Amino acid sequence: MKHAELSRRLGHQFAQPQLLQRALTHRSFSAAHNERLEFLGDSVLNCAVAKHLYDAYPELSEGELSRLRSNLVNQQTLAVLAQQLDLGEQLLLGEGERKSAGFRRPSILADALEAIFGAVLLDAGFAAAEKTVLGLYVPFIAQIDLKTLGKDPKTLLQEYLQGHKLALPQYGVREIKGEAHAQTFVVSCEIPQLGLSTQGEGASRRIAEQIAAERAYQRITKENP
Amino acid sequence: MKHAELSRRLGHQFAQPQLLQRALTHRSFSAAHNERLEFLGDSVLNCAVAKHLYDAYPELSEGELSRLRSNLVNQQTLAVLAQQLDLGEQLLLGEGERKSAGFRRPSILADALEAIFGAVLLDAGFAAAEKTVLGLYVPFIAQIDLKTLGKDPKTLLQEYLQGHKLALPQYGVREIKGEAHAQTFVVSCEIPQLGLSTQGEGASRRIAEQIAAERAYQRITKENP
Repeated sequence: MKHAELSRRLGHQFAQPQLLQRALTHRSFSAAHNERLEFLGDSVLNCAVAKHLYDAYPELSEGELSRLRSNLVNQQTLAVLAQQLDLGEQLLLGEGERKSAGFRRPSILADALEAIFGAVLLDAGFAAAEKTVLGLYVPFIAQIDLKTLGKDPKTLLQEYLQGHKLALPQYGVREIKGEAHAQTFVVSCEIPQLGLSTQGEGASRRIAEQIAAERAYQRITKENP
Repeated sequence: MKHAELSRRLGHQFAQPQLLQRALTHRSFSAAHNERLEFLGDSVLNCAVAKHLYDAYPELSEGELSRLRSNLVNQQTLAVLAQQLDLGEQLLLGEGERKSAGFRRPSILADALEAIFGAVLLDAGFAAAEKTVLGLYVPFIAQIDLKTLGKDPKTLLQEYLQGHKLALPQYGVREIKGEAHAQTFVVSCEIPQLGLSTQGEGASRRIAEQIAAERAYQRITKENP
């Protein structure tokens, strides 16, 4: 893939192609790397997403808007969007990073995408950068469930049960396996009114509870969407 | 002061004056309060300041730009700028907040100023909001010392001494006064090579050390600017 195809996917033709080149340059490759552009791009991303959410969700409070935004602009979401753009194969990485598959690392992908937003800002101003951000984010927002974004499984399960006037789940440790320094907890999640019982395993009781809750939530919402 | 004077100081005439009214409305006064505008304004402020710093300080790294920005957009700086605008007397506060001098509280002032930036964005777009932000911030940035912004006195003192090949200061507790639940620490800061000794008092050893370091730093840099 050439830069022309990436530009097409971004919806922005660079008047200064060296800005795109720089946005794709990791610090392991050259001193002319993308970190200052990333600083700039992070702020444009935040602002464009904030404006979109403010307009699109008039019923959400400031706290809800903040939570929603922080889940949209985090590394995980950015890395998913970067993968959709096949950004990995465009990155300029030093030899060490290339050999250790740096082009697949979420932090490197996310930083490069932020740097691209900064490059568009410098190339053509705020409105162009906003258009590029929203061109990627609006389809992404449309396909996720905003109600569940960023909530942990125990919270989701509890909210679902409360919304349906059902008793809260009971969690219990069923087994603790392994040596003292490397234990595995097996925890059950019981919802008697639904005749449902799931289990989760993890390195702590808390993690095991979340896994058990996730399984219960998936089962319930698949059967009663 | 009327809104006309505030608009003049902000450098923005509102086409929709109700947006300014809303930005000045604290949640204690009305359900039509300024918190969503504050969410929006925070992001515009961050973006406008990021762009300015990126352009104005090409020699700073991403980390330095981030630290600088976070010290410029924090509550303390916003509250200072809000006071320069006499924003307190324009705020719409509920009775409780009015009686407890809420119009002087830094968090309320800072939030209202952020909300104003959001109101300008909605009223006239990003370029207008950026102009309003920079109209307040550029004079502020010009009068502060960027090198020292956000560093605590012990760090500043240490950096100064290292930069002049001098031994690091020695801190020592001289006295602990008061009852166990309300102690006051008296700490000295000694720099023998400069024949300098200062003292600081505070509710913890850490605070007292910072005060002593601040006094030493002020003395040294006044005598050897």
